[in-house]
Amino acid sequence: MCGYANRIAYIDLTRSKVRFRKLKERFLREYIGGRGLGARYLYDLLPPKIDPLSPLNVLIYAVGPLTGTGAPGSARGAVITKSPKTMTFDDSHAGGFFPSWLKIAGYDALIIMGRASKLSYIYIDFDGKISIKDATHLKGYGVFKTEEVLREEVGDKQAKIASIGPAGENLVKLSGIIVDKHHIHARGGPGAVMGSKNLKAIVVSADTRNPRFEIKDVDGFKEYNNWYVKEKIFSEEYSWAKNGGTPEIVEWSNEAGVFPTRNFQTGVTDNWSLLAVETLKKYRTSKAACYRCSVACRNLTRIKDDKWGEITIDGPEYETIGMVGGATGITDFKAVVALNSLIDDLGLDTISTGNIIGMIMELYEKRLISKNDLNGIEAKWGDAEAAYELIKMIAYRKGFGDIMAEGAREVAVYIGGDAWKYAVETKGLEYPAYDPRGSWSMALAYATADRGADHLRAWSIAEEAFGELDPFTAEGKAEIVKRLQDLNSVKWCMIWCDFIAINYEEMSRYLNLVTGWDTTPEELAFKGERIWNLIRLFNVREGFRREDDYIPYKIAYEPMPSGPAKGKRVSPEDFEKMLDDYYKLRGWNREGIPTRKKLAQLRLGRVAKKYSYPRYHP
Amino acid sequence: MCGYANRIAYIDLTRSKVRFRKLKERFLREYIGGRGLGARYLYDLLPPKIDPLSPLNVLIYAVGPLTGTGAPGSARGAVITKSPKTMTFDDSHAGGFFPSWLKIAGYDALIIMGRASKLSYIYIDFDGKISIKDATHLKGYGVFKTEEVLREEVGDKQAKIASIGPAGENLVKLSGIIVDKHHIHARGGPGAVMGSKNLKAIVVSADTRNPRFEIKDVDGFKEYNNWYVKEKIFSEEYSWAKNGGTPEIVEWSNEAGVFPTRNFQTGVTDNWSLLAVETLKKYRTSKAACYRCSVACRNLTRIKDDKWGEITIDGPEYETIGMVGGATGITDFKAVVALNSLIDDLGLDTISTGNIIGMIMELYEKRLISKNDLNGIEAKWGDAEAAYELIKMIAYRKGFGDIMAEGAREVAVYIGGDAWKYAVETKGLEYPAYDPRGSWSMALAYATADRGADHLRAWSIAEEAFGELDPFTAEGKAEIVKRLQDLNSVKWCMIWCDFIAINYEEMSRYLNLVTGWDTTPEELAFKGERIWNLIRLFNVREGFRREDDYIPYKIAYEPMPSGPAKGKRVSPEDFEKMLDDYYKLRGWNREGIPTRKKLAQLRLGRVAKKYSYPRYHP
Repeated sequence: MCGYANRIAYIDLTRSKVRFRKLKERFLREYIGGRGLGARYLYDLLPPKIDPLSPLNVLIYAVGPLTGTGAPGSARGAVITKSPKTMTFDDSHAGGFFPSWLKIAGYDALIIMGRASKLSYIYIDFDGKISIKDATHLKGYGVFKTEEVLREEVGDKQAKIASIGPAGENLVKLSGIIVDKHHIHARGGPGAVMGSKNLKAIVVSADTRNPRFEIKDVDGFKEYNNWYVKEKIFSEEYSWAKNGGTPEIVEWSNEAGVFPTRNFQTGVTDNWSLLAVETLKKYRTSKAACYRCSVACRNLTRIKDDKWGEITIDGPEYETIGMVGGATGITDFKAVVALNSLIDDLGLDTISTGNIIGMIMELYEKRLISKNDLNGIEAKWGDAEAAYELIKMIAYRKGFGDIMAEGAREVAVYIGGDAWKYAVETKGLEYPAYDPRGSWSMALAYATADRGADHLRAWSIAEEAFGELDPFTAEGKAEIVKRLQDLNSVKWCMIWCDFIAINYEEMSRYLNLVTGWDTTPEELAFKGERIWNLIRLFNVREGFRREDDYIPYKIAYEPMPSGPAKGKRVSPEDFEKMLDDYYKLRGWNREGIPTRKKLAQLRLGRVAKKYSYPRYHP
Repeated sequence: MCGYANRIAYIDLTRSKVRFRKLKERFLREYIGGRGLGARYLYDLLPPKIDPLSPLNVLIYAVGPLTGTGAPGSARGAVITKSPKTMTFDDSHAGGFFPSWLKIAGYDALIIMGRASKLSYIYIDFDGKISIKDATHLKGYGVFKTEEVLREEVGDKQAKIASIGPAGENLVKLSGIIVDKHHIHARGGPGAVMGSKNLKAIVVSADTRNPRFEIKDVDGFKEYNNWYVKEKIFSEEYSWAKNGGTPEIVEWSNEAGVFPTRNFQTGVTDNWSLLAVETLKKYRTSKAACYRCSVACRNLTRIKDDKWGEITIDGPEYETIGMVGGATGITDFKAVVALNSLIDDLGLDTISTGNIIGMIMELYEKRLISKNDLNGIEAKWGDAEAAYELIKMIAYRKGFGDIMAEGAREVAVYIGGDAWKYAVETKGLEYPAYDPRGSWSMALAYATADRGADHLRAWSIAEEAFGELDPFTAEGKAEIVKRLQDLNSVKWCMIWCDFIAINYEEMSRYLNLVTGWDTTPEELAFKGERIWNLIRLFNVREGFRREDDYIPYKIAYEPMPSGPAKGKRVSPEDFEKMLDDYYKLRGWNREGIPTRKKLAQLRLGRVAKKYSYPRYHP
């Protein structure tokens, strides 16, 4: 099959065995790659209600037919696993170079199961051979040092690495898998799953001049891609990327009043410009891009001062600025860079980490937690040094960090009393950096996102608070959210970056040029919806229902105190209306379960019946 | 309140804090103690879908108003927690001396939360003072040695101890909490929860001459108790206890054709008498009893030979004989004693352990697993030495033991292919030693037991295969199962031993004499049903539904090949009928969810609405 490496590897860490398999065209046409491939595998391989940190969980690293082709925004890989943070399906995407390297080395996916008897890493050498190697000497290493040592060890300075830091090793539920130092499969705790498998890293050597996959219509692809890059990527539409990258959103968010200020106490930060592009530019050393990506949205920044020393990172992105900056009241850009670097090196998710630090600061303000509980740290708003120490407590599960390492919900439950009012999360995943009180569709997007509060499943704010639609009505929001969820579900199969505003037509064009298929835009739309429903079935099987599609207290009951969204909240009535609309539009019943009719229409009837671990019938 | 110590302790291991609380009479009248108290606490303290091995889980050790009073079979304690094995509610009971000691020391319950920063133990001294002490020197110790060292350390030879072995420390999902060496809170993995909290042991010193609780009507209690012991316990009804104890059941089971022979391949073991009371008596050194229990059902046995050396245990019980003996094809009594001793010392559940060893032996027979997968062990039927090594692999999570340590379901899933046909479990908890094909009500009892396949929630076999009822019909079985589940739900609040055939009238008499209340038998019946439903609500909240109330493949599809139940199976049709009857009788809907009407009738409407972690409303 063109577009594919035509090889997936099952890596059994318990029995130290590697098996290979070639995927059938029929399967690939249905599930394509990345998210879709992972969704079907996870559905088939996992029985319901197993412990996601047990060796039973599988960690799937999948790329797609576009990965590594040089199409803009296609340098992506997906990690698919059962989330130990939310107990739901989890897929988490990242760019950089590692995903392309994996494809070039000849793999569409790695299915990693079991648990190594000691800390290990997986090495894929230039021949594509997979070996499981000792990594006990890397125990406790940060990500930066891990990458450095492993490149040295395999004798390939260009080797690309996916690894975990101490946070993943310590099974911190906010830990991610980091590729190329600053790209991270962050949300839902995939780092903890990797840690639970005693897997420190995956190292890939690959010869980019001899990729182990083919493009069907090389000339056609080149021509179309050149046109696409010239007409789209180099157009005004992507100027944000060339200019500030995602930090451009700091301004948009504050102007819309949705910037997560001090744990969502309000939606505007007074000195937001200190966190915005104009400040970023003072520290930026250059722009950067993922493998062969013409968008080049990334910023390399360097800070140097007495407090933090000299630090260079690829970042910070908007989400980091919003959650590690805004949500904690830290408006010192250099501090955000320093914290970003620490979080990456420890292997944490900047969104969840920032959210929890912000929550701790609010609990401290409200005297619901004392410095005695926090190893003597005075967790005051805006105190970057306090945040620095709290982050380390999380990664090393030190003292109360052991609770913080579980999540905002868990902090609330552990403290008890009124603390739950300050946890801003859905399904146990912490809110990212858009306050839905200023963009109501985001409340629905977070609530219905498959892996808990996630802004990427449907970045509907672009059409709403950042676009033309009225942000303060429940009307018509279900449609946008569903449309974007379905679109992204198929985008993340190929795998496109979230920053590419690509439509079904363009996607099918690219896909057909690469594979030689004749997929229509309509088919892709169908597949997107199908994959969204398959993942819902996974979550339903795990016991998730309407009551898990909730919004947190602050969003529902505390009107925004200031800014453009002043006085607004997403009332339970408004929210329930959006949810009702959404379920109806999706063809799900009132409990949020896909109806038989819908499943039949999506050709999921048989899949829904097939349990990987059957009740009692074969 | 008479009958109570009037003190519960919240032990926060993360923050090293202990708080005390007195329970209100109103609460106690509703939930009584033990299982009931724990059920309400767990429902209120845990948000749905949290990781049971995270510091968020609570480990509740609760006694009841009868504990320590000297009433027959009342020397019991309950561990209540969210099970890491099944993800359901879990309560697990044990006798011995520890539970009475805890009550005498002045505690109705310990609510243990968080996680200690290093391996620790809790000590309750003669003054009732609670301290958290270092236990790092006990790391890896077996239970026997742990008890010995701790008694020495606290300087009280009579101190009673609840502890975990290496299995609990290694978070083995089949690990229990062992009290007094051979009594075990076994099922559902409470040992792993204790291990996850870095808690090696709880040690209690108590002065039995000065118990910290009172009996309201001392003379009345004495008189009634004397009558009860004389008329009931010393009657023919309890002769089984005086004679062989639970091993008497080996004969009954084989005669009924329900003895779990070679992983439930059949229901009769050829040489069953080698495992029965006549053999036991050869090795028995004396009978024994739990604290002040007049039933005295226990057997102390000693073996001595070249292979196993000299071993003395309190045991083996029927379940151990059935699962470690019958289910593995081991019919050497001495071997069963040796394995029992090993399992206790390592801190494992004999039922689940035996079940999994049996399954491994069957998979080995069927060539679905090889000796290469098993560290070179040839897992042949009846090979006690192989079993011995496999048990150690489980406790230390060595090699494939890491998968076995998760459970039979997990072994099946990990191996894939047809392996699932050989997993005999419900909700991830392995079947105990009664094959339901010879006693159909047990299929329903296992399927609907709150903590997964459990024989104690409704030991309906006593009325069916061991009694007068036709074992091979689905008719009328729902009624027995419901009746016994409700009865046991309240029995386990006070806490009575399973071996006491006590009715509501006698229970209320005892309870009223101890507390001074005026509880009627009808009220107790109501409370029993109420608690059963509260626990169902907990499981429903965790996402359990009808599809989780299943029976395994063998029971549904493989007719019993020999013995009195030859040709019988519990067909899906028969099973579904029993389940339908049962839900209807319970006032649950088709999905197994209590209806609003039922909840209102049981005064659970408000509790059902109250989430410990609310959706978005207070």
